[in-house]
Amino acid sequence: MPGNRAVIYKGPGDVAVETIDYPSLELKDGPGVNPANVGRQIPHGAILKVVASNICGSDQHMVRGRTTAPSGLALGHEITGEVAEIGPDVEFIKVGDLVSVPFNIACGRCVNCKDGKTGVCLNVNPDRPGSAYGYVDMGGWVGGQAEYALVPYADWNLLKFPDKDQALEKIRDLAMLSDIFPTGYHGAVTAGVGTGSTVYIAGAGPVGLAAATSAFLLGAAVVIVADLQKERLEQARSFGCETVDVSEGDPKDQIERILGVPEVDSAIDAVGFEAHGHGTDAQTERPATVLNTVMDVTRAGGAVGIPGLYVTGDPGAADDAAKSGSLSIRLGLGWAKSLSFTTGQCPVMRYNRQLMQAILHDRTQIAKNVNATVIPLDEAPQGYSQFDQGAARKYVLDPHGLIK
Amino acid sequence: MPGNRAVIYKGPGDVAVETIDYPSLELKDGPGVNPANVGRQIPHGAILKVVASNICGSDQHMVRGRTTAPSGLALGHEITGEVAEIGPDVEFIKVGDLVSVPFNIACGRCVNCKDGKTGVCLNVNPDRPGSAYGYVDMGGWVGGQAEYALVPYADWNLLKFPDKDQALEKIRDLAMLSDIFPTGYHGAVTAGVGTGSTVYIAGAGPVGLAAATSAFLLGAAVVIVADLQKERLEQARSFGCETVDVSEGDPKDQIERILGVPEVDSAIDAVGFEAHGHGTDAQTERPATVLNTVMDVTRAGGAVGIPGLYVTGDPGAADDAAKSGSLSIRLGLGWAKSLSFTTGQCPVMRYNRQLMQAILHDRTQIAKNVNATVIPLDEAPQGYSQFDQGAARKYVLDPHGLIK
Amino acid sequence: MPGNRAVIYKGPGDVAVETIDYPSLELKDGPGVNPANVGRQIPHGAILKVVASNICGSDQHMVRGRTTAPSGLALGHEITGEVAEIGPDVEFIKVGDLVSVPFNIACGRCVNCKDGKTGVCLNVNPDRPGSAYGYVDMGGWVGGQAEYALVPYADWNLLKFPDKDQALEKIRDLAMLSDIFPTGYHGAVTAGVGTGSTVYIAGAGPVGLAAATSAFLLGAAVVIVADLQKERLEQARSFGCETVDVSEGDPKDQIERILGVPEVDSAIDAVGFEAHGHGTDAQTERPATVLNTVMDVTRAGGAVGIPGLYVTGDPGAADDAAKSGSLSIRLGLGWAKSLSFTTGQCPVMRYNRQLMQAILHDRTQIAKNVNATVIPLDEAPQGYSQFDQGAARKYVLDPHGLIK
Amino acid sequence: MPGNRAVIYKGPGDVAVETIDYPSLELKDGPGVNPANVGRQIPHGAILKVVASNICGSDQHMVRGRTTAPSGLALGHEITGEVAEIGPDVEFIKVGDLVSVPFNIACGRCVNCKDGKTGVCLNVNPDRPGSAYGYVDMGGWVGGQAEYALVPYADWNLLKFPDKDQALEKIRDLAMLSDIFPTGYHGAVTAGVGTGSTVYIAGAGPVGLAAATSAFLLGAAVVIVADLQKERLEQARSFGCETVDVSEGDPKDQIERILGVPEVDSAIDAVGFEAHGHGTDAQTERPATVLNTVMDVTRAGGAVGIPGLYVTGDPGAADDAAKSGSLSIRLGLGWAKSLSFTTGQCPVMRYNRQLMQAILHDRTQIAKNVNATVIPLDEAPQGYSQFDQGAARKYVLDPHGLIK
Repeated sequence: MPGNRAVIYKGPGDVAVETIDYPSLELKDGPGVNPANVGRQIPHGAILKVVASNICGSDQHMVRGRTTAPSGLALGHEITGEVAEIGPDVEFIKVGDLVSVPFNIACGRCVNCKDGKTGVCLNVNPDRPGSAYGYVDMGGWVGGQAEYALVPYADWNLLKFPDKDQALEKIRDLAMLSDIFPTGYHGAVTAGVGTGSTVYIAGAGPVGLAAATSAFLLGAAVVIVADLQKERLEQARSFGCETVDVSEGDPKDQIERILGVPEVDSAIDAVGFEAHGHGTDAQTERPATVLNTVMDVTRAGGAVGIPGLYVTGDPGAADDAAKSGSLSIRLGLGWAKSLSFTTGQCPVMRYNRQLMQAILHDRTQIAKNVNATVIPLDEAPQGYSQFDQGAARKYVLDPHGLIK
Repeated sequence: MPGNRAVIYKGPGDVAVETIDYPSLELKDGPGVNPANVGRQIPHGAILKVVASNICGSDQHMVRGRTTAPSGLALGHEITGEVAEIGPDVEFIKVGDLVSVPFNIACGRCVNCKDGKTGVCLNVNPDRPGSAYGYVDMGGWVGGQAEYALVPYADWNLLKFPDKDQALEKIRDLAMLSDIFPTGYHGAVTAGVGTGSTVYIAGAGPVGLAAATSAFLLGAAVVIVADLQKERLEQARSFGCETVDVSEGDPKDQIERILGVPEVDSAIDAVGFEAHGHGTDAQTERPATVLNTVMDVTRAGGAVGIPGLYVTGDPGAADDAAKSGSLSIRLGLGWAKSLSFTTGQCPVMRYNRQLMQAILHDRTQIAKNVNATVIPLDEAPQGYSQFDQGAARKYVLDPHGLIK
Repeated sequence: MPGNRAVIYKGPGDVAVETIDYPSLELKDGPGVNPANVGRQIPHGAILKVVASNICGSDQHMVRGRTTAPSGLALGHEITGEVAEIGPDVEFIKVGDLVSVPFNIACGRCVNCKDGKTGVCLNVNPDRPGSAYGYVDMGGWVGGQAEYALVPYADWNLLKFPDKDQALEKIRDLAMLSDIFPTGYHGAVTAGVGTGSTVYIAGAGPVGLAAATSAFLLGAAVVIVADLQKERLEQARSFGCETVDVSEGDPKDQIERILGVPEVDSAIDAVGFEAHGHGTDAQTERPATVLNTVMDVTRAGGAVGIPGLYVTGDPGAADDAAKSGSLSIRLGLGWAKSLSFTTGQCPVMRYNRQLMQAILHDRTQIAKNVNATVIPLDEAPQGYSQFDQGAARKYVLDPHGLIK
Repeated sequence: MPGNRAVIYKGPGDVAVETIDYPSLELKDGPGVNPANVGRQIPHGAILKVVASNICGSDQHMVRGRTTAPSGLALGHEITGEVAEIGPDVEFIKVGDLVSVPFNIACGRCVNCKDGKTGVCLNVNPDRPGSAYGYVDMGGWVGGQAEYALVPYADWNLLKFPDKDQALEKIRDLAMLSDIFPTGYHGAVTAGVGTGSTVYIAGAGPVGLAAATSAFLLGAAVVIVADLQKERLEQARSFGCETVDVSEGDPKDQIERILGVPEVDSAIDAVGFEAHGHGTDAQTERPATVLNTVMDVTRAGGAVGIPGLYVTGDPGAADDAAKSGSLSIRLGLGWAKSLSFTTGQCPVMRYNRQLMQAILHDRTQIAKNVNATVIPLDEAPQGYSQFDQGAARKYVLDPHGLIK
């Protein structure tokens, strides 16, 4: 049995690559594993040899010390791999299949899964609906920024690529199917983006750029991406987006300069609770800024997608209200315009097959748009660090050197 | 030409019945009329002899002095009437038709109207999308708690009852089509209520009871209505609702006693920005209480309908944040459960015809459920006062004594 | 191990109750079992002690000799039971659970199941998408008009009733969840039935009556049921339906007498390919009559649900075209009115939980409406015979005498 | 007052350009005008100076003599123009506006228009719901292959281009908004085309090519277009479509060679009732061939869009059944796969604004894809003739020489 090198959260600002146990078809005790999940048998699981595993912005919340993640937690929920072993209950997935893993762990047997709401599966996290690999308070499923990873309910969760060689050619793109491409797409869909839409996307990180890519795929006429980082805005412009630099003042004015009107059909919050202010407040954390802005710039009758993460408690927040997760929101702004809002984890399975088809048939260039950057597993700490400093890159870890 | 007695807002806590001009096919200057609307020609309008005109909870916001409504404003946006006169452009509505008037004024010619979003029509209110009769900052269309009222774009806005005699028999029910029945129904639809749903409705005023009635019509299994007023809760129980008395503590515990689980499939906020706290806070205004509660009690993957009014500014609010319309909302509560939210005016036209059919064929008893209480126009001041004190009644003004 | 008495198709017009093998967690060879399914292992299966198993109109197609069903086929796809044994892969369903079985067999792991299209599961029938218990050309899953029955993918397929005692009290109603109630409901939903709809339902057999029950549950204003059998029409009237006797001439005229207009908002074909003509043709099989009628009576912009079965070949048909499954349809009738059409097996899982809730909370009386009639398993042959003669009853077999 | 040169149907195979009356705000008697429409006042109408007016495949049904169109009928329902005059009831459209005219005439005041179903407006055609300019049995609204044309209910029907100069630059593309682009798009939408779809489109005429263009805009992975005409197939390949030559045999085999599987997610019938057979039958009219093929090639759970015209009667049909509009359809093929079908006129207004935005922002090249070919009005007869012979062109008439 091989060893298993993995990216481990050590403490605020500190990640390291260490060796952990090779996965087995049982969820064993370890850092962050919910006691009610310890000893859980996984005959329906598959063990993957990880081909690509990406660093996600939501990992950064943990690494920055904004959560209660325990030291020793193996990170990583954006996994693509080759099936190395299957449990006795796995019927349709086969050893050797090259697969994408939705970051949401789902049982495929509860009422929410049957309803397509795999982001809030009832059977995988003893604390509350919904789970993910390598994430705090999500039940304790081991992270996949590693050489090997376990995926439960493999027949349900795994998306098999139809042609392995073809898939390896496009693996940088396909690696985005585990999270950010569907997440950005979900943001766009729930914001009502369609043919001819004008779209405002707050945040030019990977999810924001994935939302922009999705908006184009959905037929948007104009896609406007907003951020504070000039390098990220440059990346957005590289594939046809218009941009708004929120450090330069009110987005509404900048939108008007682009569109002739100060509002858009659809808006997407791809930032979440660690938002900064706009204009002169740009260096300060202002957790409700993005929400209030997206309400302000969306036209009456429009919709807002909120894939950006908001939390129920934030010990590291700047003020007491935010520490208990309360944000000062101008809901009346949205109410007066009859806006609708959709929050929460993207149910990846709802979209990943279709997006795979779009990638395989060259209808979209997600890897190029998010500036996918492949690095060895051992360089994960540097990747985390550079990403945290705002690098306009999406880091893809390549544990076995399989990515060309 | 007859005179026109109407209900007039005089100042905080003060309404009176006075004589105003008989309507004409021109929007003339007057209290609250937007300058850009003064002199607007209405060849597409119809003048109605008002048969029923209801007092609405949102009128109370003005009468309580929580808005900038000017003294002299004629109130009333829940109008049912007989067509007395039509403009030269009216083609399909005829003099003598008995009709229901959606409270949202809509042109039937802008992009939002074409899209069914009549609550945010672009052409009727110079200030912003959306309008209503007799309401502050809505363009200045004269209110319909009066003997006669003008309805613009009559072919588009008016819903004709197919049989006048039959309609007069059911006029108490049909009078609810102008606002609260569709508004409650919209709340239920946008909260995802359907066959077998469990539903929590915050507020047992007329909109809350209309939402409850709608939930049953949509096939809900259990409808739970919450309020502070015992008489209103009794009214809810009269047609099969379960109830929660929020003055007695956390709604979640009470829901668990009813359902066996502490959550529902769908929740509706039928209270809005003048919400009070729960439990020991029940006597205090806590504008975010209801929003935070509905997020708390809705199950993961559920939806929340927010027909209750939230405003962009509230000069009479208890604290500075609320004065500028900012509420301290625990959005992370909803995000963690992937909730969606729908806000805004109900686009009445989307539902009123279907609800009319349900009334005419005896599938629902909306008037009985909201305790419709017919009073003469002259008793409007008493109606306002009793309603403000929490009477479990929906007051229907009968300006011409036409209601049996 | 107990024996297993079951209803067996012997030949045209002939069914008998005989003893077959007690189910095991392997699909063994037998009448009608697809060779590719022989020996299939079912570790994910549950063996049920059957509490109720209904006779379905689609069973009659086989018993009348209109299909290629082999002699010896064990019949029955409308199964409700208590879990007697579970396979090693079953995780959430427990021995002793009282459950409803959707008639469509589904794997819960293919792309169609993930998309909620369990009626066309890709992994259960080697011939083509979709399967059912005890049915010709459906893969060979053994029928459940028996004392015991095997259900594969039990965690996915089974709907557990939350309270066993309560469920046994309502078992006549809950037994309709396996097929006809969701099937009728699907017909109504896909026909666009909602609040205030007027509805035409062709066929007053159990599916037609279930569609009528569903239409009321969905808020329909007027439900019109058409048939040739006076007893069935009487049954429809017993719960508030209007009726059309198609032996008395054109349904359109009769609809006009009921509604004042000769058309409805929504129409449902609950008859299928063994349709008879109308008026003087009422004694003759006219396979396209119902389809042409529902197009004729549905208003422009309406929708048609087609839960009634149409087949790709019909050896017993009256003419050569129908033998190869070709029907002479006036599609232009529907095209001119922009109608939409939905065909196929109802995906039961999409609706059964919600309908269960409606039953448990007394919002609907499906058993009474379809005249559910409980008979012992041994009387199944008489049940088949009486049902074939048009009895206005839905026969429920009670193999263990558990129904009060 | 200027004269008005227009394209006139003279008899089977014969069109001519003749002078007719300049439009007025009254519908006067003339060839094909429904008596109930004669004298109808149009104060809500606008008179357009026609900038572009296209020849449509559905015009050819009339010109081939397959309908009861009267000699003298002015043809043309695909109109783009500049507003020359407005009636007294027109409030928002102004003289000088450059506008697109949806081919469906709609009142904007009936229940179907309010519901977005403008293809079946109840108030414009005395015979039945739905109308169009210059078309037999559609009420008698005068055709717009002319120098000037009248559009009723101008505020409702007309889509204004936001910038006139920019619009004139793209007028070849924008001219397709009046019919074929929305019609093809409607076919794609109702066939369920979305991101990653595989699509089969029967017919490579302009509507088929517009459907293909739409499918790409909607994110389709593979678009397969089928026809008998090699030149049309070549046109389809010019913008990335795969093609099937139905004269060479069963489309299913050809699809399998393209996709690796013999079926698609979505299929669109862009042919209609004048379909020819496949393979050796390719020279013979076989009106049900396309319908049976699209059912055959669509995967289980898929959907079929039917923008191709089917008629209630076809005096020129090859057999008696087809003469009365009856086609021999294998509905069971579709039923077994749970397909859904959407028929009818495209409600243009539902899509034209979004598609305009996509054109103005260079997201699609509809004119290039359908090979838009501008000719003077006087060359209309040659255009009709060449189009009838299968020219892979979409003819755009330019009555005033305004198209560069």
